[in-house]
Amino acid sequence: MERKHNFYAGPAVLPVEVLEEVQKDLVNYQGCGVSVMEMSHRSKDFQAIIDDGMATLKKLMGIGDNFEVLFLQGGASTQFLMVPMNLCADGKVANYIDTGAWATKAIKEAEKAGKKVHIAATSKDKDFTYIPKEFKLSENPAYLHITTNNTIRGSEYHHIPEVPADVPLIADMSSNFLSKPMDFNKFSLIYAGAQKNIGPAGCTVVIIRKDLIEKLNTGTSCAAGLPTMLSYKTHLDKGSLFNTPPSFTIYVISRVLAWIERNGGLEGIKKINEEKGAELYGVFDSSDFYNGTVVKEDRSLMNVPFRLANTDLEPKFIEEATSKGMLGLKGHRSVGGVRASIYNACPLASVKALCDFMKEFEKNNK
Amino acid sequence: MERKHNFYAGPAVLPVEVLEEVQKDLVNYQGCGVSVMEMSHRSKDFQAIIDDGMATLKKLMGIGDNFEVLFLQGGASTQFLMVPMNLCADGKVANYIDTGAWATKAIKEAEKAGKKVHIAATSKDKDFTYIPKEFKLSENPAYLHITTNNTIRGSEYHHIPEVPADVPLIADMSSNFLSKPMDFNKFSLIYAGAQKNIGPAGCTVVIIRKDLIEKLNTGTSCAAGLPTMLSYKTHLDKGSLFNTPPSFTIYVISRVLAWIERNGGLEGIKKINEEKGAELYGVFDSSDFYNGTVVKEDRSLMNVPFRLANTDLEPKFIEEATSKGMLGLKGHRSVGGVRASIYNACPLASVKALCDFMKEFEKNNK
Repeated sequence: MERKHNFYAGPAVLPVEVLEEVQKDLVNYQGCGVSVMEMSHRSKDFQAIIDDGMATLKKLMGIGDNFEVLFLQGGASTQFLMVPMNLCADGKVANYIDTGAWATKAIKEAEKAGKKVHIAATSKDKDFTYIPKEFKLSENPAYLHITTNNTIRGSEYHHIPEVPADVPLIADMSSNFLSKPMDFNKFSLIYAGAQKNIGPAGCTVVIIRKDLIEKLNTGTSCAAGLPTMLSYKTHLDKGSLFNTPPSFTIYVISRVLAWIERNGGLEGIKKINEEKGAELYGVFDSSDFYNGTVVKEDRSLMNVPFRLANTDLEPKFIEEATSKGMLGLKGHRSVGGVRASIYNACPLASVKALCDFMKEFEKNNK
Repeated sequence: MERKHNFYAGPAVLPVEVLEEVQKDLVNYQGCGVSVMEMSHRSKDFQAIIDDGMATLKKLMGIGDNFEVLFLQGGASTQFLMVPMNLCADGKVANYIDTGAWATKAIKEAEKAGKKVHIAATSKDKDFTYIPKEFKLSENPAYLHITTNNTIRGSEYHHIPEVPADVPLIADMSSNFLSKPMDFNKFSLIYAGAQKNIGPAGCTVVIIRKDLIEKLNTGTSCAAGLPTMLSYKTHLDKGSLFNTPPSFTIYVISRVLAWIERNGGLEGIKKINEEKGAELYGVFDSSDFYNGTVVKEDRSLMNVPFRLANTDLEPKFIEEATSKGMLGLKGHRSVGGVRASIYNACPLASVKALCDFMKEFEKNNK
């Protein structure tokens, strides 16, 4: 049975060699006599898996013992709430840069949590088609929160905003996490749903700098009295094992991280991602049949949205592509058009197949 | 490679035929050309999986269209918070029966959420070794919450408490969910972490009666203004697809539910569970070498804790059992001793192997 070209925005394509490895060990993991799905999260075998995942992640990111890694549940949507609840104390202001739907949701949740919110910058004026280069912090900022890649609009930060040393920089990296090297040390807290670049749905990776943790633990923050499951301190104190974690998902993530490592780490992954991006953006930069929707300098290498000059042809385009084994090309329902998500594990061959189809479709429908 | 006898308390043993089915379809699900892990949660293929899971669950439970099913994240520990936040309005009192560690945690979380709590009954006086048969509700009860099986202490409700018609009965069924037929229609809300009886860790099943939902939706409850992810209404309005659900875990759950159906539904499962329980309890009822820790009438058919008359022998017992391929027999760290968890998918052969070992160990160490 043939595998299809998978352009879903998430859950998304995984490396086929990881799937095959998981398949092989599914009923009896490495001779343990049980599946990873059946292992107690308190067993030595599972502890080895989660330790390995945390260590590989830190190595790939180039971060040291001044960071802690958590594997949580509830998606980025739960982080939208936990970040302000844990990190925005009374009298402080939660600062956000609004670059589209997910950033807007993060802002809404901080407001729902009763926090004072300041929009330090926004690209709403041009329908979120660019990344603001300037921003203005409020008085008493608790933190600055950014969304490093915007899955729906297809824009991506290619720089890290410079903040004063005493202002924690916080990032939702869900849709471009581990897609390229970054100076992760500049961030105080990073979170990412696994289901784009690093695994199946059901686990959210959170990376926290220890100086933030110390504040949480010494009670100089707003974290005292929080509901147990919503407190970072709960999960940090127990190494992500306060309650039963999504253990099988964590295992698959650890296998994807090992795959990234085998492929040259984030430098190696970046090269492949740039090659794929050049192919795909190349097609619509050399044609007026297709139009990109984001300013060139802020284009995402993960989510590539575009329109047909004749938008009436878009349903036909998507239908024909689907019939040729290309899944997930319909743009998000809030913006329409076409979107190809080409995360780390999307093979160059899939991107080339899409490009070939685009050229053929243009020829047939001009 | 041989599979071991798995007595873990959760994540726990799954039916080997389900594991083999999942293994077979892991890289390419039913010819879809992608793994279930790689499917968009908005795709038709995944919608069919979640619809099938919800329908089979309702059929097994014998509940109709007056109930809704949710597949959420965050474990029972998150439900400890969501229940009082969503269902205990100002002026109302959250009523709990305290039957051990997990019930106690649920109570603590209601208090943290700022709710007035009333302990309607407790078995703390005898170290949680029995299930209280009587209880006394407070004035203005928002609901009565029970824990139908106590994983650590090994006690189980074999009756359903009778409450007045206007008092919702709420149950944490994490560790005996779908282990026997019950009149589920008597409950207003049921929740259960999947990782004991119905699947891998990372998904919590919540079943809500529609009259409770209607209250949530008409604003006569305390649900307005809740954080988005903590509101049942959010997830109900979107059929568990407000944000990305733990899709692969839901898929495995749907396969376990189908396995229960093939094995005679809850009636069939109950028979096997009773047979296993009779074997295991039979061993220590006919010997003074081993002692049960729970009063007979309230014994759990899921978690069977016991002590050796000579407790000094317990480490040796567990070590020898482990060397014979029996995993997870160490009692919970808070109570010590031995515990065998014998959930639905634990084969009778595993229970018999344990019984044989117990008899042999007794002979060798008397």
